[in-house]
Amino acid sequence: MSATTIGIDIGGTKMLGVALDAEGTVQHEARARSPVHDLDAFVARAVDLIRELDAPGAAIGVGIAGLVDREGRLRYGPNLPTLREAPVRDALVAATGERVVVDNDANVAAIGEATYGAARGARDVLLVTLGTGIGGGLVLDGDVYRGAAGFAGEIGHFTIDRSGPMCACGERGHWEAIASGTALGRMARAVVERGGGAAMVAAAGGDADAVTGVHAARAAAEGDGDARKLLEEFADNVALGLAALANILDPECIVIAGGLVEIGALLIRPVTDAFARHVEGVQHRPPMRIVPAQLGERAGAIGAAILARSLV
Amino acid sequence: MSATTIGIDIGGTKMLGVALDAEGTVQHEARARSPVHDLDAFVARAVDLIRELDAPGAAIGVGIAGLVDREGRLRYGPNLPTLREAPVRDALVAATGERVVVDNDANVAAIGEATYGAARGARDVLLVTLGTGIGGGLVLDGDVYRGAAGFAGEIGHFTIDRSGPMCACGERGHWEAIASGTALGRMARAVVERGGGAAMVAAAGGDADAVTGVHAARAAAEGDGDARKLLEEFADNVALGLAALANILDPECIVIAGGLVEIGALLIRPVTDAFARHVEGVQHRPPMRIVPAQLGERAGAIGAAILARSLV
Repeated sequence: MSATTIGIDIGGTKMLGVALDAEGTVQHEARARSPVHDLDAFVARAVDLIRELDAPGAAIGVGIAGLVDREGRLRYGPNLPTLREAPVRDALVAATGERVVVDNDANVAAIGEATYGAARGARDVLLVTLGTGIGGGLVLDGDVYRGAAGFAGEIGHFTIDRSGPMCACGERGHWEAIASGTALGRMARAVVERGGGAAMVAAAGGDADAVTGVHAARAAAEGDGDARKLLEEFADNVALGLAALANILDPECIVIAGGLVEIGALLIRPVTDAFARHVEGVQHRPPMRIVPAQLGERAGAIGAAILARSLV
Repeated sequence: MSATTIGIDIGGTKMLGVALDAEGTVQHEARARSPVHDLDAFVARAVDLIRELDAPGAAIGVGIAGLVDREGRLRYGPNLPTLREAPVRDALVAATGERVVVDNDANVAAIGEATYGAARGARDVLLVTLGTGIGGGLVLDGDVYRGAAGFAGEIGHFTIDRSGPMCACGERGHWEAIASGTALGRMARAVVERGGGAAMVAAAGGDADAVTGVHAARAAAEGDGDARKLLEEFADNVALGLAALANILDPECIVIAGGLVEIGALLIRPVTDAFARHVEGVQHRPPMRIVPAQLGERAGAIGAAILARSLV
């Protein structure tokens, strides 16, 4: 039996696979486009990807963007509508003859970062993906925590601002509605509408309607005052949610992943400052680390391969 | 070695102890007043209580209202100011010569309810105490979850209503500030100030300033329209927080404990209805139970005794 395992991360736009050896080194990497017509097309593409990884007989771990139940069925994935209710695990087992485990993409990214990444050595880890939306993965007492139905870690969806903006899910004032990349873009355009943010508009090629969080970050990096003020305000939104989660879960380490990590210290530093103001009992507890993810786009695939080790 | 263990629940006003046999039957029960001048006075009173329980040689579990670290030291307990930073476990070990384990009171109540109470048989349990404040205990994957520093389950302190009332902790709009018994009383007095709530004032003996949540509940039980409307509104506040926690933790069962449980179905029913509106993916997940606690004031002591079994 090979100690190498395969991990595949399936997102809304791409699939990324790795073959990971027992020391945590990526031996092979492969990728494919993700949106597929149906389960059969998905399985065919996944089988090709697995073949490319050149690790015959390796157990397979899969991370997928959505709610995955304990039987490895994708119950609901907003970015993978054609796979809704698809029995992903059973279909891959049938197609490959290998052992397969399937989990949520943020959960496997959390295992990846907790094992070989930013949270190496921590037993209680919260991974927060700040991107188009907000996702979360939990490693508690050293293991992925899935919850009773496998749906734990839906951390973007709790109310922080009852009279705040609508969330994509239809509830008002959820954390995701004020602290995701989408929210940052909306806040940036609001600054422009109020007559500010010239540097952000310039970063967007002069098109005020095209301003996104990326342009705000770029303008802030260039020292623009409006953009820096916006990032401070946004950092407070992020920190309010992190403090809530820290009060509930008391993690040793919070890993920030997702597209907004690219902003770097201009975001992480004010988030860390605001977090210290909002979290409870900061004078009584050991400091909690807030760190950017280290494994980049590979975190999920590496974590999925780690998860597959439990099958060997 | 006796299979009987001792459990003691230490709150702001009283200490309650039980001797619990291996079948979960309470063999002896004892109580004492709780506020004490200092650690020595506390230990002397606890030793008396333990003697009354008549289980020599039994391991001792303690639940205490506050932040307890992994070494059994009370780091911070707002209702036990004289025991701040007290090494409760070491002091009890020295005084009794027995094995002792100390945890947060809501954590031990959660073990109690998950083992012999309302959540019997569930592996992932969230216990929520709705009283003067809001406390929480987590049983995840069948074990108490304590977090990295032992401070997990501070579930009352996350922002739900950013422009809402101040919380006792100094942050604005925390769940505790809108969904505790204290909050219900404040909301009831606000109804009275607006000229309504005559039945609530009557329940308070005619003193408008003395109206609390208890009087609102009593008036609602008698069919008063204003009081029922108030409870509906309050139930929505409770449900928003429960939905947040359910999205994050995906428990199989949520146990409602604390003083507000006395309100009964008039609270639990609208909370359950509002919860179903607020929780994510309700159409994709198995139903989550919201149930009132069953072990009453003994839950913490029974849970503490169960915790002590791990020492035997």
